[in-house]
Amino acid sequence: MTQSPQSIWTDVERIRAQAPLIHNITNFVVMNNTANALLALGASPAMVHAPEEVEDFIDISSALVVNIGTLDATFVAGMRLAMRKARTLGKPIVFDPVGVGATAYRNQISEELLTVAAPDVIRGNASEIMALAGLNAQTKGVDSLYGSEAAIDAARRLSSVWGSVVVISGEKDYIIHGDKTAVVANGHPLMTKVTGMGCTATALTGAFAAVNADYFLAATHAMAVMGIAGELAVAKKSSPGSLQVNFLDTLYELTETSISNRLQLTEA
Amino acid sequence: MTQSPQSIWTDVERIRAQAPLIHNITNFVVMNNTANALLALGASPAMVHAPEEVEDFIDISSALVVNIGTLDATFVAGMRLAMRKARTLGKPIVFDPVGVGATAYRNQISEELLTVAAPDVIRGNASEIMALAGLNAQTKGVDSLYGSEAAIDAARRLSSVWGSVVVISGEKDYIIHGDKTAVVANGHPLMTKVTGMGCTATALTGAFAAVNADYFLAATHAMAVMGIAGELAVAKKSSPGSLQVNFLDTLYELTETSISNRLQLTEA
Amino acid sequence: MTQSPQSIWTDVERIRAQAPLIHNITNFVVMNNTANALLALGASPAMVHAPEEVEDFIDISSALVVNIGTLDATFVAGMRLAMRKARTLGKPIVFDPVGVGATAYRNQISEELLTVAAPDVIRGNASEIMALAGLNAQTKGVDSLYGSEAAIDAARRLSSVWGSVVVISGEKDYIIHGDKTAVVANGHPLMTKVTGMGCTATALTGAFAAVNADYFLAATHAMAVMGIAGELAVAKKSSPGSLQVNFLDTLYELTETSISNRLQLTEA
Repeated sequence: MTQSPQSIWTDVERIRAQAPLIHNITNFVVMNNTANALLALGASPAMVHAPEEVEDFIDISSALVVNIGTLDATFVAGMRLAMRKARTLGKPIVFDPVGVGATAYRNQISEELLTVAAPDVIRGNASEIMALAGLNAQTKGVDSLYGSEAAIDAARRLSSVWGSVVVISGEKDYIIHGDKTAVVANGHPLMTKVTGMGCTATALTGAFAAVNADYFLAATHAMAVMGIAGELAVAKKSSPGSLQVNFLDTLYELTETSISNRLQLTEA
Repeated sequence: MTQSPQSIWTDVERIRAQAPLIHNITNFVVMNNTANALLALGASPAMVHAPEEVEDFIDISSALVVNIGTLDATFVAGMRLAMRKARTLGKPIVFDPVGVGATAYRNQISEELLTVAAPDVIRGNASEIMALAGLNAQTKGVDSLYGSEAAIDAARRLSSVWGSVVVISGEKDYIIHGDKTAVVANGHPLMTKVTGMGCTATALTGAFAAVNADYFLAATHAMAVMGIAGELAVAKKSSPGSLQVNFLDTLYELTETSISNRLQLTEA
Repeated sequence: MTQSPQSIWTDVERIRAQAPLIHNITNFVVMNNTANALLALGASPAMVHAPEEVEDFIDISSALVVNIGTLDATFVAGMRLAMRKARTLGKPIVFDPVGVGATAYRNQISEELLTVAAPDVIRGNASEIMALAGLNAQTKGVDSLYGSEAAIDAARRLSSVWGSVVVISGEKDYIIHGDKTAVVANGHPLMTKVTGMGCTATALTGAFAAVNADYFLAATHAMAVMGIAGELAVAKKSSPGSLQVNFLDTLYELTETSISNRLQLTEA
């Protein structure tokens, strides 16, 4: 396996060239952010949740991103149908179990959605990954109470049960598939002061999965690009309002050189 | 007909003086952007979709903007009632058929809404205008696969059937009503890298229609202001995060001179 | 009573240290803004509305913020359950009756929610406070047609009936509880050109109420911090797109000195 700035850059160039249509069923808080991040990266985002149309929309999409951040019955109905259809058509599914562990409803819906269609990639913080693996993890709403390392065993278990690539986001991001592990040490703590940065990472993973059928690589590349763009944005100004704006700018302006200069990726 | 920087500016001054209340039933992705754009222009936006109250709200509003970007049954029920009431009261209706052509549901709802109340202005990209006119147009989610020119015949047909002013957004914007055509060549390609710029154009059209009962002029003025504000914003910084911020600033700072200096408007 | 820059700062430091989880059931337009403002201040926001889970979520939250800006049946069902549970557990409830007075539905739901659980703090503009007090106030959608002073009697009546601290936002903010009154003269008119600044004030009040059980002080501190951060942001650039970004930056960068230098607070 050879992950490198070059392999990341190749995927970025593919996204820019193909502008893959990414179908998002996501939460109200981040719809605007994640649409703009996908556009800045070069993809073509759409937010479509109505049960009446999600299956039709999967037909024309290159990847499905499902995020339960502000779930309710209508959205969950759309998620079920979209995931089943995406699985049938072999289109990549990326799943973000926001806040799982915080309520029984989130636990039940997350479990059910995994059963409907095992996602190709699952991305969450340590609390979420532990909760999704059935551990009795504590959560603080949508924030994690643990470092990423605490969830490695849970991630491996999830990966083994569902066959998914599992990403634990945090100060370091762990990307786990079977017995493979990649660690991305990019990013900046200030990113936790902007809402939806995790959701944005999930959405970008959808774009990488649309152009790279090796989802372990796709997820690793997405986390690296996310972290590097965040670092570059914080370098411009270290305050959260500016970070949100500069993050989109740096994502759009990303070059192979900036990836080379900053990438902190190790594999085990 | 005499469209000019002066006639545009007169409408902008009316909006600033009257702050017309614009009732939006729009999509989740752009609600914040379009509310802020309406405020920056000088209008007073409100987002109200519940079937229980949309009719009451039309009573106090100066224009209705309907956008199906993230439609579902609840929103569609509100759209129906609001459009019927607005038509009864003679208040202008602006319709944005986001993503029509992408799914059967969008096609069906769009057709039904046209029947409920023929809009005064319809604004879409070329794919959407062609799909709404019943052509078998290809779409890529919410993006067009055609240049604006490809949709001129479809726009003319739509205008003839529904009596609406029809706007085709793109590199050039065509504003069509019966046998009249205006072409606005303002704007910048980077605007397609910010989500909801089309939806914002639709929302601004609502504000212009609230102060100018000649909806052909109102739509043309809206597209000109949209394009000019976009150009001025890109001139400040050519990246999409900054564009979103600078667009609101330039809209707020707009002067008659900046319109005069930049307007690229022709009529046929 | 001794409200001072020091007492405000003590609360800000508590929020930063404890990062209280603030449960918001709010409107689609401002979810992103208010989440980011809560993060910038130091709190931990979550947006959770589904009736299936709001009660569970109240269990782990430190305050509940309810805002009816884009209410519909699903959200109202969640609001009812969350408010009842928060009241049972003695967790602070902050209520923002956005647009009450504009439609019969808003009036009916607002009255009903007050009955479900009298809020600890109610924040609105003058039109909203007058309408909520049963006066036949005129509204212009979500904007007030009156100065704050016009609503003082209404606020006092509301406070007397429900026991709530009542905040009237405007050029001056009046914070009223029983026979106590505080007046905050901070803020800037440009803040009315950014959508959701009132909703943000409400959300921040939730954070202050989570760390200060004297809700009269909590509400006063929130309005002072809101106004001061707004002034500092306008001082950087006096346009609405930039204001939105700079407001989050200044909120994050807030110091005791900037509060001392700018606070305009009087008590009666």
